[in-house]
Amino acid sequence: MQDVEAAKDERRGLIVREREPVNLESPFEELNELLTPNDLFYVRSHFAAPQIEADGFELRVGGAVENPFAIGYAELRSMPSITRMVTLECAGNGRLFLTPQAEGVQWGLGAVGTAEWTGVALSVLLDRAKIAKNAAEIVLEGADKGTPKEKPTPAGEIRYARSVERARADDVLIAWAMNGADLTRDHGFPLRAIVPGHYGMASVKWLADVRVVREPFAGYFQTTDYAYWAELEGNPVRRPLSSMKLKSSIARPRMREKVKAGSRYMVFGAAWSGEADLVRVEVSSDGGRSWAAAEMLDKPRPFVWRRWQFAWDAPDVTGICVLKSRAIDARGNMQPEEHDERFGSYVVDHVVGVEVEVR
Amino acid sequence: MQDVEAAKDERRGLIVREREPVNLESPFEELNELLTPNDLFYVRSHFAAPQIEADGFELRVGGAVENPFAIGYAELRSMPSITRMVTLECAGNGRLFLTPQAEGVQWGLGAVGTAEWTGVALSVLLDRAKIAKNAAEIVLEGADKGTPKEKPTPAGEIRYARSVERARADDVLIAWAMNGADLTRDHGFPLRAIVPGHYGMASVKWLADVRVVREPFAGYFQTTDYAYWAELEGNPVRRPLSSMKLKSSIARPRMREKVKAGSRYMVFGAAWSGEADLVRVEVSSDGGRSWAAAEMLDKPRPFVWRRWQFAWDAPDVTGICVLKSRAIDARGNMQPEEHDERFGSYVVDHVVGVEVEVR
Repeated sequence: MQDVEAAKDERRGLIVREREPVNLESPFEELNELLTPNDLFYVRSHFAAPQIEADGFELRVGGAVENPFAIGYAELRSMPSITRMVTLECAGNGRLFLTPQAEGVQWGLGAVGTAEWTGVALSVLLDRAKIAKNAAEIVLEGADKGTPKEKPTPAGEIRYARSVERARADDVLIAWAMNGADLTRDHGFPLRAIVPGHYGMASVKWLADVRVVREPFAGYFQTTDYAYWAELEGNPVRRPLSSMKLKSSIARPRMREKVKAGSRYMVFGAAWSGEADLVRVEVSSDGGRSWAAAEMLDKPRPFVWRRWQFAWDAPDVTGICVLKSRAIDARGNMQPEEHDERFGSYVVDHVVGVEVEVR
Repeated sequence: MQDVEAAKDERRGLIVREREPVNLESPFEELNELLTPNDLFYVRSHFAAPQIEADGFELRVGGAVENPFAIGYAELRSMPSITRMVTLECAGNGRLFLTPQAEGVQWGLGAVGTAEWTGVALSVLLDRAKIAKNAAEIVLEGADKGTPKEKPTPAGEIRYARSVERARADDVLIAWAMNGADLTRDHGFPLRAIVPGHYGMASVKWLADVRVVREPFAGYFQTTDYAYWAELEGNPVRRPLSSMKLKSSIARPRMREKVKAGSRYMVFGAAWSGEADLVRVEVSSDGGRSWAAAEMLDKPRPFVWRRWQFAWDAPDVTGICVLKSRAIDARGNMQPEEHDERFGSYVVDHVVGVEVEVR
């Protein structure tokens, strides 16, 4: 990795990117399994992690509904549950690869992971609350709070909150378990949202309030942070980030790895999209001049990454080789060569070359 | 005035607050007439003033309409016109009085003025274009463009643009004259919008495009700049600034003016509101402990300021007196004592004390 200051947290096997609030990166070069082990799953926090006791905890459901209610943790867990595999990627994953360097947590490749999440459908809770006909969005609000840094900044402490569009709410889980184990505090205990296909910012941790609103939500993490400049008939307009863009990453070889000349090396990685289905990954070992299809190791599942591999025959002569991967989706879209500046320091989905030393 | 760096522009009688882009303040202490003379009317620019020739100039009307069209300057001027008196105040007027000092043009009292504007109703143009049933807002776009400074900032040059809600559009003028004279370049020649009751940011100068859109407009000057943090059920939410708040200002005496002990001084000022009707102004000569009604000099007109005066008998003893004025509207709202921090460096509508030296 390029970031020499990041130190491995030996206790947990995660790369510490920030201690307060805690932001930990998965060691992507160690990717093997389809499901990321819980203790290697990246942790993204905006404020200090609240300490919440399950006993007495209640999730509130209110706003533009006929029947606002609060539901206890135990009651929620006794309801019929769904277990669903979902890949989450932080919208700032890969920020380390931006030039010039951008402000924010310096994520490398590993602010992404896949788990099986268990919980109830948000739609079941909304049906019980009977949402108003003119409801527009559902605001998911965490118990975590603090003072954000980006401008323009509201005065005082705010709670983390994001919204999902009403139509999108059918997909969303209110989860209490991750790969079969109760959520840890870092991952949002006792409850978190899981919004399949969206960047991780939408999967609100320490979920405390589900609030139905009648107009598009213009909260801080929806407009100032986790937002970008789209274009509307020639004008830049501010829009919230939403679905994960088509992307592939190379887990192995690592940046600057030494490979024996003339050997066969199994290039290994993962690829995903929160939009159209991912159908193919291609690999180049000559810096992008020629490309060949990689072997997909996982069947397609909605909003879940697919691991891939590619047998690369390292050249007989010594020197630097630049390996690249690119993903292609069912609509024929291809992972871009360059970062789209409209996204600022987010959506770093462009092809990143991995320089390998053949010797 | 507190701002010692601001120099009078002798050529024009305006106070130069910024040269590029040109931002000029009206000398509020010279307020006399109901209508501000054109050469004393404040000038607010975001980018360099475009040089537009009337010959060949066309205003475009398009977007979510059945019949998009362009109309020439001469044709527009040949249409039945409306002349309407309107007070415009810059949303940053009074920024000089914020503590701590805020970024932005350091306006004192005089980024406000009243003129008679002549033009056609925007609604006439929209009727001709036949706007779509599901239209939400009307974007007014100027020909001026540049790179804004506030964060988050879109990449590259953008044009100045603001929107008015569909319902609000009935009020709006597309004006070519100001107090009977053609607009000058600084005031938006050949055409500008006039949005009565709103801060000046809505009255787009060098108007080039009227564009109907189907969703609330989230442009830079609607979300990043000229916006504030409202509260929605405990969450800060970003909203565009809109109507001018209830406010009064003292034109005379000036800050630090010397007044003869025992003399009668005619305190003079103006007051306005873009919301409920302004009904009363009160004056205090003891720093706000006691208040008495001022005499209103102008009849009430919608979205037009009213001048007022108050006969103050200066004390017989020498010392500092703090004069204050406050406005009251038809709903019983009173001009606030403190600046509302949610508005950042905008909406500086609080009561400002004028220190006078009695000697």
